[in-house]
Amino acid sequence: MKKYLDNVRRIAPLIHNITNYVTANDVANVLLACGASPIMADEEAEAEEITAQCMGLNLNLGTPNQKKIQTMLKAGKMANKRKHVVVLDPVGVGAGSFRRQAAEELLKEIHFDAVRGNISEIRVLASLCESEENSGKGVDADNTDRVTEENLAQNIAAAKMLSQQLKTIIVITGAIDLVTDGSKCYVIKNGNPQMSRITGAGCQLSGILTAFLAANPEDKLQAAAAAVCMMGYAGELAAEKSGQSGSGTYRVSLMDAVSCMDGDMLERGACYEIR
Amino acid sequence: MKKYLDNVRRIAPLIHNITNYVTANDVANVLLACGASPIMADEEAEAEEITAQCMGLNLNLGTPNQKKIQTMLKAGKMANKRKHVVVLDPVGVGAGSFRRQAAEELLKEIHFDAVRGNISEIRVLASLCESEENSGKGVDADNTDRVTEENLAQNIAAAKMLSQQLKTIIVITGAIDLVTDGSKCYVIKNGNPQMSRITGAGCQLSGILTAFLAANPEDKLQAAAAAVCMMGYAGELAAEKSGQSGSGTYRVSLMDAVSCMDGDMLERGACYEIR
Amino acid sequence: MKKYLDNVRRIAPLIHNITNYVTANDVANVLLACGASPIMADEEAEAEEITAQCMGLNLNLGTPNQKKIQTMLKAGKMANKRKHVVVLDPVGVGAGSFRRQAAEELLKEIHFDAVRGNISEIRVLASLCESEENSGKGVDADNTDRVTEENLAQNIAAAKMLSQQLKTIIVITGAIDLVTDGSKCYVIKNGNPQMSRITGAGCQLSGILTAFLAANPEDKLQAAAAAVCMMGYAGELAAEKSGQSGSGTYRVSLMDAVSCMDGDMLERGACYEIR
Repeated sequence: MKKYLDNVRRIAPLIHNITNYVTANDVANVLLACGASPIMADEEAEAEEITAQCMGLNLNLGTPNQKKIQTMLKAGKMANKRKHVVVLDPVGVGAGSFRRQAAEELLKEIHFDAVRGNISEIRVLASLCESEENSGKGVDADNTDRVTEENLAQNIAAAKMLSQQLKTIIVITGAIDLVTDGSKCYVIKNGNPQMSRITGAGCQLSGILTAFLAANPEDKLQAAAAAVCMMGYAGELAAEKSGQSGSGTYRVSLMDAVSCMDGDMLERGACYEIR
Repeated sequence: MKKYLDNVRRIAPLIHNITNYVTANDVANVLLACGASPIMADEEAEAEEITAQCMGLNLNLGTPNQKKIQTMLKAGKMANKRKHVVVLDPVGVGAGSFRRQAAEELLKEIHFDAVRGNISEIRVLASLCESEENSGKGVDADNTDRVTEENLAQNIAAAKMLSQQLKTIIVITGAIDLVTDGSKCYVIKNGNPQMSRITGAGCQLSGILTAFLAANPEDKLQAAAAAVCMMGYAGELAAEKSGQSGSGTYRVSLMDAVSCMDGDMLERGACYEIR
Repeated sequence: MKKYLDNVRRIAPLIHNITNYVTANDVANVLLACGASPIMADEEAEAEEITAQCMGLNLNLGTPNQKKIQTMLKAGKMANKRKHVVVLDPVGVGAGSFRRQAAEELLKEIHFDAVRGNISEIRVLASLCESEENSGKGVDADNTDRVTEENLAQNIAAAKMLSQQLKTIIVITGAIDLVTDGSKCYVIKNGNPQMSRITGAGCQLSGILTAFLAANPEDKLQAAAAAVCMMGYAGELAAEKSGQSGSGTYRVSLMDAVSCMDGDMLERGACYEIR
C-alpha cells in the first residue's frame, strides 16, 4: 500500500471536482491533506478546459442540478478523451428519478475508472443495469442491506458482476468495504462507526480515490484499495485520538489523520484480504 | 424535555433541507449529531419527490436565488400535502426586497409548522403581515431591538400575535429565546454569547427544530422548545469546554456538545419558564 | 498596525461577499472572528440592494458561473457609485479562459480598492494588462514563480507597476507577501507554510482585507498591510498552538488565532519592512 500513497504525495495530482456544496470544503481539504491539489469548477463554459489540465476528475451527485449534470457530461467526455482518471460518486442516487436518470446518463456517456458509493447507492446502479426497480432512501445506507460477514460472499459476487457490466472498479463502503475490478476483490476492514456520524466521509474518500488513481495509473485496483484503506485507517486513528469528545472533534481528527499519514503508516495499518 | 430528544434519536427522521451554501455543511452535521438524517437538494426537478420521502422540510432563505425560491414553493406544497413538518428560517429577510418578497410568497403559499429567526428577522415578517415598512440590516440581529428582561412582556405579546396571524409556532432566538404557539410562550434562557460569534448557529437550530417537530408531531410546541433548549444548552457546554480558545474551537465544541447530549442531560440543563 | 484592527472591531463593518461555495463558511467565520459582519448573496435581483447597505464588497472568482459574474458586475458598479470598498480575489484565474475573461471584464468595469492573489494569479492579471499570453495552473501558486529573497526587487517592481496600471492596491501572498499602492511596498514576512496546506486561507484573507479597508478608508495601504500581517501572524500562532497535529487542527487554530487577536498583539507580531 505504501507506494500508492507515496506516489500521491510525490506527484501531487491536480484533481478537478464537480461536487456538492455541502462537503466541497471537506473534499478540497482532504485532497490537500493526502498530498493532491484540488480545483472545484462547475460552470459549463470552463469545465472542459479545466479538466484538460487536471490529472483526475471527481464527479459527485450530491446537490445536483440540471446545469451541473450537463457540465459533468462535458467534463467527463473531455477526461475520457485525454485518458484522465474519472470517478463517480452517486450520492443519494436512490433518492429519486432525477438522480437515477443523471447516473444512468453519466454511466452511458462516460467511462469511469471507479464508482464509489454505499451499498444502497451501488444497488441502485445495479438495478439500472438490470432495468428493474430498486429502492434506496436518502444519502445514508439502509441497515437492511449493509455488507456483513454473513452476506459477504454474495455481495462480493454482486460487486464483481456489476464491475464487469460497467467495466469499472466498484468501491462499496460501509462497515466492510469492497473494492473490485470484476476479477479480484479487496475486502477491507479498516474504518470506524463514527465516520457515518459526520457528513462527507464518503465524498472525501471519492476525492482521495481520484487522486490515488491519477497518481497510480498502472495499478488502479491496488491504488483504489489503498485509498480505501487510508480513509478507513484515518477513521480509526481519529477515533483513538478524539475518544468520546463528539462528532465535531472527530471530524477534525479525521482530517488530521489523513494529513499526517505516510506510506509506512498506511502499510502497517491497512487491514484487508483479497478474494 | 427528555422524551423529545429521545424520540429524535430513536426515529432518526430524514430531513430535506433547501438551504444556503454557507452553512449547509454545519446543518448536515448537526442533524446527524442530534440523531436525524439530512438530505440537501435544491433542484426543482427532484425536490418534490425527495420531500415526499422525508419526514420534515427545512427552508432557509440564506444565499437565495430565483430558482431556489421556486423549488422551495414546490417542495413546501408537497410537504403540506403529505402533512410533513415544514420550517422556515428567514435568514437576512431584512436585507432587501428580494428576500422580503420571497418570504411573503412562501408564507402565503405554504403552511409552516414553525418559523425561526432572530428578533430583527421576525419583526420584518411581522411588518409584512401589517403591510407596513420595517427595517432590518444584514443577517445579524440589531442591538436596538433584542429581547431583554425590560421589554420581555411586550415581545412575548408581539410573538404571540404573530403566531396567531401566521398560524405557526414562532421561535425568536437571541440572549433570551421565545417559543410560542400563540397561547403559551416558552421563555428560554439557555445559550452563550459566543454562539453569535460564529456563523450558522441559527441555521443549525432550524435544522434541529425541523427534526424535533418531525419526531414529535403530537407535541409540537414542547418539541420546538426542547430543540431551542438543546441548542442553547449545547452552546453553554461548548463555552465551558472551549474556554477562551477562540471561535474555531468553540464551533467544534458546539457540534461535540450536540452529538454527546442525551435526554437526561437535556432535562437537567434546560432553563425555561412558561408565560 | 494596532489602530487598523481596533477600527475593524469597533466599527464592525458589514461586508457583502460574492464568493465560492468551497470556502464561503470559512470567509463568514473569519469575518466574524476579526470583528466584522458578513453577508453572502449572489442573486442578481438582490445584489445591488445588499451592496448598497454594506461598507465593503468582496468579489471572489472561485467556483464562478455566468450568472454570478453578472451579479458581481452589478454589485461592483453599485459599490463604486456609493464609494464603498471593493476587493477582487482572482481565484484560479490562470485555470482557463472563462475566469481570465471574467477578471478582465471586472477590472474594466469596476474600480477595485485592492486585488489579492498568489503570484501565479497576479501574473495572469499582469499579462491581461499587457495583452499577452501567460500561464497559471489551478488555484495554487506555481513553485517556479514564487516570491523569494533572490527575486524580491524584481517582484516589487512588477507589483508596483501593476498597481499603477490598475490603479489599485496589489496584494501578493506567499512565503513573502507584498502590498503596494504603486509607490510604497510593504514586504511582509509573517505566515507559516501550513497555511497553504488547507484550503481557503487566501479567501479568508480577502474577506479580512475588505473589512480592514472598509473600516480604515483614510489609510488604505496601511490597512491592507495590517490585514495581511494579521492573517500571517494568526498563521504563526496557529502553528505554535497546533504543532504537528495535522491540517484539521491547524485550520481550527487559525480561526482561533484571528478571533483572539487584538490590536496590541498585532502590533507586536507584525513583521514587515517598507520598500
